[in-house]
Order: sequence, then structure tokens, then C-alpha cells
Amino acid sequence: MKKKKAYAAAGVDIDLGNRVKQELPALLAATKRPGVLGKVGGFGGLFALDTRRHRQPVLVSSVDGVGTKLKVAFAVGRHDTIGQDLVNHCVNDIVVLGAEPLFFLDYLGAGKLEPRVFTEIVRGFAQACAENRCALLGGETAQMPGFYAPGEYDVSGTIVGVVEKANLLDGRHIRPGDVLVGLESNGLHTNGYSLARKVLLDQLGLRLNRRVPELGRTLAEELLRIHRSYGPLILRLLRRFNRPDARPAIRGMAHITGGGFIDNIPRILPAKCDAIVRKGTWPVPPVFELIQRGGGVEEAEMYQVFNMGVGMVLVVAPEAADGILRAVRRTGLPAWVIGEVTRGAGRCRVV
Amino acid sequence: MKKKKAYAAAGVDIDLGNRVKQELPALLAATKRPGVLGKVGGFGGLFALDTRRHRQPVLVSSVDGVGTKLKVAFAVGRHDTIGQDLVNHCVNDIVVLGAEPLFFLDYLGAGKLEPRVFTEIVRGFAQACAENRCALLGGETAQMPGFYAPGEYDVSGTIVGVVEKANLLDGRHIRPGDVLVGLESNGLHTNGYSLARKVLLDQLGLRLNRRVPELGRTLAEELLRIHRSYGPLILRLLRRFNRPDARPAIRGMAHITGGGFIDNIPRILPAKCDAIVRKGTWPVPPVFELIQRGGGVEEAEMYQVFNMGVGMVLVVAPEAADGILRAVRRTGLPAWVIGEVTRGAGRCRVV
Repeated sequence: MKKKKAYAAAGVDIDLGNRVKQELPALLAATKRPGVLGKVGGFGGLFALDTRRHRQPVLVSSVDGVGTKLKVAFAVGRHDTIGQDLVNHCVNDIVVLGAEPLFFLDYLGAGKLEPRVFTEIVRGFAQACAENRCALLGGETAQMPGFYAPGEYDVSGTIVGVVEKANLLDGRHIRPGDVLVGLESNGLHTNGYSLARKVLLDQLGLRLNRRVPELGRTLAEELLRIHRSYGPLILRLLRRFNRPDARPAIRGMAHITGGGFIDNIPRILPAKCDAIVRKGTWPVPPVFELIQRGGGVEEAEMYQVFNMGVGMVLVVAPEAADGILRAVRRTGLPAWVIGEVTRGAGRCRVV
Repeated sequence: MKKKKAYAAAGVDIDLGNRVKQELPALLAATKRPGVLGKVGGFGGLFALDTRRHRQPVLVSSVDGVGTKLKVAFAVGRHDTIGQDLVNHCVNDIVVLGAEPLFFLDYLGAGKLEPRVFTEIVRGFAQACAENRCALLGGETAQMPGFYAPGEYDVSGTIVGVVEKANLLDGRHIRPGDVLVGLESNGLHTNGYSLARKVLLDQLGLRLNRRVPELGRTLAEELLRIHRSYGPLILRLLRRFNRPDARPAIRGMAHITGGGFIDNIPRILPAKCDAIVRKGTWPVPPVFELIQRGGGVEEAEMYQVFNMGVGMVLVVAPEAADGILRAVRRTGLPAWVIGEVTRGAGRCRVV
């Protein structure tokens, strides 16, 4: 009989960790893209930057988690969407600056490694990385006994992308008169889940596996809808509408995450501009109305917690708005003019 | 009276989060280095790569956590060392490939944000980043009610560095006859804490705040000793001993983390080489003997869980070993010849 090792008895099983990781190479290989060097298992992930394509490369990076959306995944035992949420969230955060994703690294903290769950999570990372042409370059899986409740875990991820310095979109080109184009979200994305779960599950007493007529699906399906990636679409729009040596038609973009329009649009506004978002210019999806009514949440707070049906806002030149709207809608994604830029003080108002 | 907001009642306070983050800009500014662009609060961190210095730049990245060392920090309420542990660990993971650190991003997941604790943690990140000339370029702080026990949190961090492709140290130059030089660790660094805590606290019943004669300090002081960064030293050694257009004198390096010599040295070994680590060629610090004796842990397992007093192994040309040893020791850091490379099958043996 094999002797139980001391480290395993303390809750950490190195061999188990290594066994679980055997599936990794195939999953990672599926996300390979030009630039990826080296092998899995080295100390660091390697990515060769193509300096012929990038003469003044600016690396754009972002780190994120998925928050308490994880609790919904735990409750229904579905783990392949979380990685997609996280990668797509990260992609959106750097693509708003004009950057093309290069690579992504994940962190997974858990009490005890469940091989099936681990593989499902990583499969989600790998799928979304491949869809965004982003290499899954590395990851860390921490076995932390006594840290996470049984069956629970936390994930975080970091993305690195690149943009040519002259094409960096930091909002400096935004002027009064510019138009706000909103792109449809896919539900809550990854924000506001603590409030949403409290209202829907605790206050309204809805069940995750029960169909909700207003939503046309089960509550779990609604709450696990995957954070949409706007990455490939936006990179195509930038290539088509922002020409080198001209003032860009797409002047800035805001990923609508925690803090909603109110906190996110000002991140790209010049100090002397305000953004006006006009309610009623797009359809607010039923899940938000359910939360607002069910929880008696003030409308103002709804707009500071949730995306309210708009996952991405493009600030565009007025003369380009129609062409951009058409180009977006042609892909099947609903989009609307949801407001405009005025003189102001760097704030966003929802009216 | 101010009305309590629904999101705050659900355990998430956006305003609190924003207040806590007011200290961030000053802390991050202290880590600024050439290349850093943009401002805190944008969607992504910006770093301009200098393509005059880097003609064939390879980006080297790594993600890590600090494991259950956090439990010791929680127990004694000390939070400024954890960030240093994490940054230094990440720096070591990329410097072994020859890479110079560029920037770091952190993730902090917590149940409820404690402003004092948050500031202490970030101060640790900022201090270590500054010491390693690495920009603290961004971070994510997730308030996840009901996820972490009160007063607890998890951290992870991702580092990105750069190395000129011709200088990438991936172990391919290692040959039989090369010498292993070990650099002293600063205690446990960040590995094996689940086992160490189980033996020292549960089995031996030692108290964290009590002085342990063999250790010459309290147990908490011993267990919170900061993971040493070898980054600045190794970058200096590489500049001095590895000349362009010659076979490098420093042929590969292994950061001794979870898995010890046994799992980490093979990561850089060519398929036809073995590494022999000779016990008794360096002094094993008393904390490891305490764990081994106290827990009745087999010696073989000790060497697969802990660093045993050696935090970094350099594989060097035999004729360069003396010069490298002298150069390391001159900085005050103990170092020893701890073994050699032989013909073999890509394995490490401790004899």
C-alpha cells in the first residue's frame, strides 16, 4: 500500500495537481497564435512581439475577476462559462483602447482540486481565448485547504494586448457633438451579481432551475449568459473606420462594467465634455426590470450597478454614426444611438 | 439621513471601494519607470516598449499567488509583506529566463474591503515593484460578499517582462559537467505552508507570537519572512557573465518553489542531462529541520515540498563558477556549489 504523504495529509496533493494538468497542453495548444514561443511547464509564458508590425508598440494590460457570478455557477454545477466570461471581460477592457489581444494568464484558487471542474473551467478559458485570437499563455492553480468552501473557487485573469502608439484610443479626440453608439449586452455580463442574487433569489424567492416567463428561460440560464466579447467586431470597425493620418471616426469606447454608464464613460471623457445617455433609446432587457421592481431599487442606482442592456459604448463622429450602426447591425448585433457628447465637466448623465 | 443603497445592503459598497482607491495613485506613482504611459483609472494599463533597446523582444509573463502563507498574515494581522512575497515570486519566475521585469498587475478578492488592510497590501505590492524596477500598472479589487471568511482575502499577481530573443535562457546550453550554484533562500518563501502550518501549529502546538529558540525569532516572524527577489542581482550577473556572441556562462536558472529541486530543476534541463543536488553542501535552515522532525516527514518529501534553504539554482559553466560565487557573496548573499549536471534523462536527483 502506498503511504499517505504528509503534504497530501495537510490537504495538498502535488501528484493530483500534476495529473490534472496533463490535459492542459492540448487545451492551450488550441489557443496558439503567431508570437507564442516555448513550452508549457517553463517558468514563464513566452511571446515574441513582431516589431515589423509594431513600430511603436504600447502594451495594454488588464486584470479582472468574475465576482459573485461564480455563486450561480457553483449552485448549478456548470463551470465552462466562467472562463469565457473572464476572458471576454478582459478583451473588452483592452480593446476599448484600440489594442489587439496577445495573451492571457489565469489564476484559479480552490480548496481542493476537482479534476472535472478544473478541466471545465480551463476549457472555458481556452475556448474564449481561441475566439478572441488570444493565446492562453499560462496559469496558476492554487490548492488552498481551508480557504474556500467545498466546491467553491475564485478565478482571476490578466490579459496583455498591443496597439501602435499612434492608434491608441484614450478619448482625447472626443468633442461636443459626438454621438454615443450603444452595443447590446448579453444580460448582466459579470456585474451586479451580489445585488441581482439577493433580489432574485432571496427577496423574490425565484429558483435557479425554474423557467421565468418574462425571461423566456430559466433563471440560471439568464444569470449564466456569457459576458459578450466585442473584441473581434471592434478591431474590424477600427480597421475600417479609423484611417491613419486622419482624425479617428471612432473616438473612444467605454466597456460598461461595474459602475455602469455613470462611472465608466467618464474614464475616457475629456475634462470639458459631458456624456448624455438618453433612456428609452434602447430596450432595457426584462432581467433588469425584474431586479428593479423586485428589489425596489431606485432607477439611479440601477444605472450605476448594471449595464442595463448596453455592454459597450462607442463615441463616434456624428457623420460616421450611421455607417458604424449599419456595420454593427449587419453582424446581427443590435446597436442604437443612445446619446451624445456636450460641453461639460467630464461627467456622464443619464436623462 | 442618507438612505442605504440596495447594492450596499447586498454587501457591495461602490463608494467605499472608490474611497479606498484614493490612496492608489500615490502608491502606483512610486513604481513608475520608463515606458509607463497613461493614468490610473483608464480601462487598461499602458506600457510603451522601447523598440530601440529591444529589436527582437520576447515578452515573458507569469502569474502566481502566495498560497496559505496568507493564513499566517491573517492570524497576526500583518498585511504589508504579502504583496512583497507575490511580486518577488513573480520576478524570480521570469528572471530565470533572462527577462527584465516591466510591469505587474494584482488581483485582490475579499469579502468586505477593510481600508487599512487594503492599503497595507497595496503598499507591499508597490514597495516590491519599486525595488525590482517594475511598474505596478493596475489591479482589480473584488468585493465578494459571502465568499471569503471575515478578515480573509486571496491575492494573485501577474508580471510581464522582456528579454531580447538571443538572450533568452531556456536551458538549451546546459551540458554535463556544468555546476549548480545555489543561492540562499529567506526561509520558506511561499511554498509548503499548508504542511508547515499543520506541523508547527497543529502537531507541535507552537504559538505564532512566541519566540522559538532554534529559530532565533517568533514563529510568525519566521513564517512571514519575505520571499526573496533575486531579480536585480541576477540581471547584474547576466550583464557581467553572459556576453553577446559567446556561449553563456550562466546557462540556465531554476526558481525553487513548490515541488522543490525535484520538480523545478528539470524544467530547464535538456532531455539527456540529469542534475545531481548534493545534500550537505549548504546549511539547511532550522525551520526545515523543525518541520521534518516535528511532523515525521520523510526527507524525500521535504525536498519535494520545500526549498530547504536554496531559493534559486544557477546552472553555470564550470570555469565560471568561482567568479559567479564571489560576485554573489560580495553582495552579502550566501551561495554554494550544491551539485552538478551529468548525462541522464532530464531528471533531478538529490543525493
